[in-house]
Amino acid sequence: MSETKAKAGLQDIVAGESSICLVDGKQGRLVYHGYDINDLVGKASFEEVIYLLWHGKLPNQSELNELDAELKKNREIPADVMALIQGLVNNPANPSGMEVLRTVASYAGAVDADKSMNRDTHLKQSAKLVSLMASATAAYGRLKAGKDYVAPRTDLGHAANFLYMLNGQEADELAVEAFDVALILHADHEFNASTFTARCTVATLSDVYSGVTSAIGALKGPLHGGANEDVLRMLMKIDSVEGAEAGIKDLLANGVKVPGFGHRVYRSYDPRGLVLKRYAKDLTAKKGNTKWYEMTEIAERVVLEYFAAKGKDLKYNVDLYSGSLYNAMDIPVELFTPLFVMSRVSGWTAHILEQYANNRIIRPVADYVGPVDLKFVPISERA
Amino acid sequence: MSETKAKAGLQDIVAGESSICLVDGKQGRLVYHGYDINDLVGKASFEEVIYLLWHGKLPNQSELNELDAELKKNREIPADVMALIQGLVNNPANPSGMEVLRTVASYAGAVDADKSMNRDTHLKQSAKLVSLMASATAAYGRLKAGKDYVAPRTDLGHAANFLYMLNGQEADELAVEAFDVALILHADHEFNASTFTARCTVATLSDVYSGVTSAIGALKGPLHGGANEDVLRMLMKIDSVEGAEAGIKDLLANGVKVPGFGHRVYRSYDPRGLVLKRYAKDLTAKKGNTKWYEMTEIAERVVLEYFAAKGKDLKYNVDLYSGSLYNAMDIPVELFTPLFVMSRVSGWTAHILEQYANNRIIRPVADYVGPVDLKFVPISERA
Repeated sequence: MSETKAKAGLQDIVAGESSICLVDGKQGRLVYHGYDINDLVGKASFEEVIYLLWHGKLPNQSELNELDAELKKNREIPADVMALIQGLVNNPANPSGMEVLRTVASYAGAVDADKSMNRDTHLKQSAKLVSLMASATAAYGRLKAGKDYVAPRTDLGHAANFLYMLNGQEADELAVEAFDVALILHADHEFNASTFTARCTVATLSDVYSGVTSAIGALKGPLHGGANEDVLRMLMKIDSVEGAEAGIKDLLANGVKVPGFGHRVYRSYDPRGLVLKRYAKDLTAKKGNTKWYEMTEIAERVVLEYFAAKGKDLKYNVDLYSGSLYNAMDIPVELFTPLFVMSRVSGWTAHILEQYANNRIIRPVADYVGPVDLKFVPISERA
Repeated sequence: MSETKAKAGLQDIVAGESSICLVDGKQGRLVYHGYDINDLVGKASFEEVIYLLWHGKLPNQSELNELDAELKKNREIPADVMALIQGLVNNPANPSGMEVLRTVASYAGAVDADKSMNRDTHLKQSAKLVSLMASATAAYGRLKAGKDYVAPRTDLGHAANFLYMLNGQEADELAVEAFDVALILHADHEFNASTFTARCTVATLSDVYSGVTSAIGALKGPLHGGANEDVLRMLMKIDSVEGAEAGIKDLLANGVKVPGFGHRVYRSYDPRGLVLKRYAKDLTAKKGNTKWYEMTEIAERVVLEYFAAKGKDLKYNVDLYSGSLYNAMDIPVELFTPLFVMSRVSGWTAHILEQYANNRIIRPVADYVGPVDLKFVPISERA
């Protein structure tokens, strides 16, 4: 057997086939099973995109209705899960939203009586997880802020219902559309770290909940899911439109990596970022609070100029404008990574289904660089 | 950027350097940081091996004492974790031990107040997880069997304390030694599926608990952790020494894959299997109940002869004799995979520490085989 030594982090290693998502880094294109995201945004709902990711085609009305009913059925949080969330929110260790979601996903799997392994069950569990991650994020956000839990509604779409559960009132139309678009844009991204982790997990033929629990754990890391929080936190420290240019320049001069720029795969622009910028601009204008959006625009200009002067053609990524956009929906910063879960759980489960359909356990090898043939010495003789 | 297409499951792809464990598949050798497992078995304790895996050297007495104190400090199960375990055991969905451990690991991370990312914290959390996985496995086993929880003792070693907590009485010396050896033999195995999943998870700079939670999810799958249960379950169906030969031949004739044989990495024998067979023979003889051991020996002979007749040089693996061994310690079958967690958590955490020390996010690419340039059609016009 001949071995192939991969670059660190498996960079450029083609780890398998997939028909879910094409990331064309050179042209700055993102395609979900044949459809450019720019053709989906504003035309298809997040629910239609979930169907597309799971089934490889856009649903007709009756197929969408069926999925929609399944999602709505699972919106209410069971009493034991609610008690778990409440206990975690009250815990003095102050668990993050990601720790809460990771634990909720694992717990939900444990108490799911259907342990069978077949596509029907996996689809039902995937729908359950999509709804549960949204409801649990809203519940965590409410309880964390000292407010009462708001029960879900079944007369609203997925995006609208989440904003209702979080804020206790219906969001306006533009906010709902913008949030729906944000969910679509974050839904899948090929073999990103959390998705690949989910595939590694279920490739032992473990269950859907195990895959999603692993993926939440991976997304929790600051190199993956945390950057959208970092942008707004950075702007909040500077805290004024007037001070933005000087503040960002100061960070750059001090060698601080400004979040929201660059991407391992996109060599051109990040197509998701362009869309989010447009919605962030419109929604903050409509809300009459453009502070974070304006500061983000300044950050974009200053950072790009800084790198252009060094001959580097850096672009902003999906994380740069999502902060000002989510803020305009009254979503607090500590929920930004959980929002990512709410969306990406659709892609994770699509990849889990795809992995099951053509499975092989994922088991690379290591290059052993440790000692060999050490002589055992009893503990009484060790220095 | 040039891409390299990997074989399915990343087979033979060298995914990174490691100095923790050498699996020499050709020679049938397993080496932990320079020490052949045959030099450790019966001479070093599981605790010494944990130290070796984490620190890259065998401990002297004072280093071992320090680790031992840390492990013992964490043996007691906190009240909230115990309530979680009790709730899961009582749940009508009948969660498996692996689902309980996965949820407990995630929960323990959420309620750990120390969220800092440094080696000291990571070592403390690793010790906490080693002890917690053992105590939680024992508690789950007791409660599941309708018995009362048995509190841990601090005057016993890790292996002896677990058997005490599970059975409510001290195990005899040979059982303790055999269990300690089983823990050592399962402690690490290079980039196996669960360990690699743990590394993928923490390579986003996520936390230790996320890594271990992911690994438990991966180990839960029947292609990875489940085979040791399968051997004994198979023998229990046949249920007699006299019927073993015919029973196994029957399975083979019907094309059933007999568990406990073959390994993706070991082309020669599995060195762990040889040791476990020796202990299984001695312990079952001492207990005066050799039924499962005798049946396993028959299974070994029949299966090897069957494949030899086809020109295939198959060998038994680590899973074949562990069933009769664990049974002789009065450990029920449904705890076999949790026992694997109890041991492998030492290796997972060693790999997590190693990943942090030289980190790069693990992000391969996919070979997109789906459609491109599909034309969007509104839902009202879809067939």
